[in-house]
Amino acid sequence: MAANLLSRYPWVSRPFIVCAPMKVMTGPALAVAVSRAGGLGFIGPGAKTQDTNEDLKKASSLLQGASSIKTINSALPVGVGYQLWADDINVAVATIEKYKPCAAWLYAPNQGPKQYDDWSSKIRQVSPETQIWIQIGTVKEAKQLLQNHEQPDVVVVQGSESGGHGRANDGMGLMALFPEVADVMASSRIPLFAAGGIADGRGVSAALCLGAAGAVMGTRFLAASEARISKGYQDEVVRAVDAATSTTRTHLYNHLRGTFGWPEEYSPRTIFNQSYVEQQEGKPFEELKKLHDEAVKEGDKGWGPGGRLATYAGASIGLIHDVKSAGDIVHGIREDTLGRLQQLSGND
Amino acid sequence: MAANLLSRYPWVSRPFIVCAPMKVMTGPALAVAVSRAGGLGFIGPGAKTQDTNEDLKKASSLLQGASSIKTINSALPVGVGYQLWADDINVAVATIEKYKPCAAWLYAPNQGPKQYDDWSSKIRQVSPETQIWIQIGTVKEAKQLLQNHEQPDVVVVQGSESGGHGRANDGMGLMALFPEVADVMASSRIPLFAAGGIADGRGVSAALCLGAAGAVMGTRFLAASEARISKGYQDEVVRAVDAATSTTRTHLYNHLRGTFGWPEEYSPRTIFNQSYVEQQEGKPFEELKKLHDEAVKEGDKGWGPGGRLATYAGASIGLIHDVKSAGDIVHGIREDTLGRLQQLSGND
Repeated sequence: MAANLLSRYPWVSRPFIVCAPMKVMTGPALAVAVSRAGGLGFIGPGAKTQDTNEDLKKASSLLQGASSIKTINSALPVGVGYQLWADDINVAVATIEKYKPCAAWLYAPNQGPKQYDDWSSKIRQVSPETQIWIQIGTVKEAKQLLQNHEQPDVVVVQGSESGGHGRANDGMGLMALFPEVADVMASSRIPLFAAGGIADGRGVSAALCLGAAGAVMGTRFLAASEARISKGYQDEVVRAVDAATSTTRTHLYNHLRGTFGWPEEYSPRTIFNQSYVEQQEGKPFEELKKLHDEAVKEGDKGWGPGGRLATYAGASIGLIHDVKSAGDIVHGIREDTLGRLQQLSGND
Repeated sequence: MAANLLSRYPWVSRPFIVCAPMKVMTGPALAVAVSRAGGLGFIGPGAKTQDTNEDLKKASSLLQGASSIKTINSALPVGVGYQLWADDINVAVATIEKYKPCAAWLYAPNQGPKQYDDWSSKIRQVSPETQIWIQIGTVKEAKQLLQNHEQPDVVVVQGSESGGHGRANDGMGLMALFPEVADVMASSRIPLFAAGGIADGRGVSAALCLGAAGAVMGTRFLAASEARISKGYQDEVVRAVDAATSTTRTHLYNHLRGTFGWPEEYSPRTIFNQSYVEQQEGKPFEELKKLHDEAVKEGDKGWGPGGRLATYAGASIGLIHDVKSAGDIVHGIREDTLGRLQQLSGND
């Protein structure tokens, strides 16, 4: 199964390391750098669906350098992510047809799990080169997926440790969630990737032990030098520790940023700051919004414990202490993962 | 480090598998069976501290069979667990002095982390054979422990997937929590065990990858034939799946059983049933208590989705589908763990 999967991504080295499609923040530079290092980078959804067109154009251009990446059927060796509730399917499909990314990561339908069928079939019609990745976070979603007509090529199982949007009220730690989903989906033989709380070789090797074909990281790549992220935000990812007490799941920051409409079953994990603290103290939204918008103008100072801006991040923040190039991140984690598995299989 | 640890438990085979001290339910038969299989069984706290005396007497007698277990300084090859907020230190210490269990697992102080010092020093005075194991569930507790005078021999890091009592509001999935605690405690060189959501070789091997010296399981052993548990309760552990939607953390069942006084930072995960559903619907506690007490009289029928009795269990319930002997559980998980690590270290 894993070997078969790797044949579709011939530039990828074991362990299969993926950079998650983080909205706006996984831009073309980061996605390409991850793929160049032998992983798979996914360009995140744009502020508008149309923005992905420009990102793929840029990625395509970055990939036309001296050292080309071997792909299947000339597919672009980066993936692309969409939020089904927010993105325009026709714009997305036209973009995929034009650039042929090797994978499309679909998430967060607002019309039930059958919405994946519509996206999957339309994408496959215009680009058989594009594999369908679907992200779930519950056993229930796994069972629902099995009922769909268009079976995904890969399923990403996201634990409650994850940053950004995950399950609002029915999340569960990856340690218990992943194996149960794997058992539920075993007969499908669809490769499963693990996401949530993973930021180093310990997490990646643990994910492989749980049965994952590979590991997805988001937060670790927020602290990559190629991430499309403000310095103030990135500094917070590096500074913050102990996610159990420094992060929470709340829609407050979505709303402060003017983002409404996420399906109710999702909610983002964020490093909280003054906006959240004062909301908990009872300050009205209108006042928080005014203070937030003023903080936006201050730039990097708007982040930090005394700041007010959205700082979506996962529970792995306590494992991330520096900004590194995506290549160094991928190579370092690969080496640690393989070494760890070698050591544990011996009789040291 | 791991080798040094194993020298203290010479009958234990790798991977180091531990049966958690579950109140009343890990009785002498279960604890001894786990140790006989090359793991380490901990007798759970009794209804009263004094009850552990009888349990250790029984364990001692069970261990005087034909196949004796090689221990250090004649320590008893089972451990014993105490809840510091509820147990009587003098009774506990006298029991430990008499039976010399190889390990004492301390948890849930109500007088702050320094309370561990008092217990640890008194236990060590009367029984140097007894190693001190302390269970934590947060990064903060790890930092506090390092300030204590009496350093534990082992620290158990419990993720939020765990069943029974864990952190009420500041828990975190093991995937992110364990490595961060390991980094915080690295300089102490104290071996760390992983607990929470682990029920098979996938979880145990993942725990080792995260850096654990061994893995602790509770829920898996509730479905051991030697567990001191009602059949109705055990049937629920086998039946229930998808812990994200079938379990919750609540003190309701403690209170229905007449248990009050747990320090507020702890709360137990339980498979919920009618008692919880009706509490959420607004039924007064007095009515729930009356119905609960009637259900107690019905025995095994008191458990199940329509039942009313406490069914503490962890998020691994979806991985447990049968009742087996503790020996079969330990041997099967060991084989799966070792095979999995071998396979992943190769180039399959």
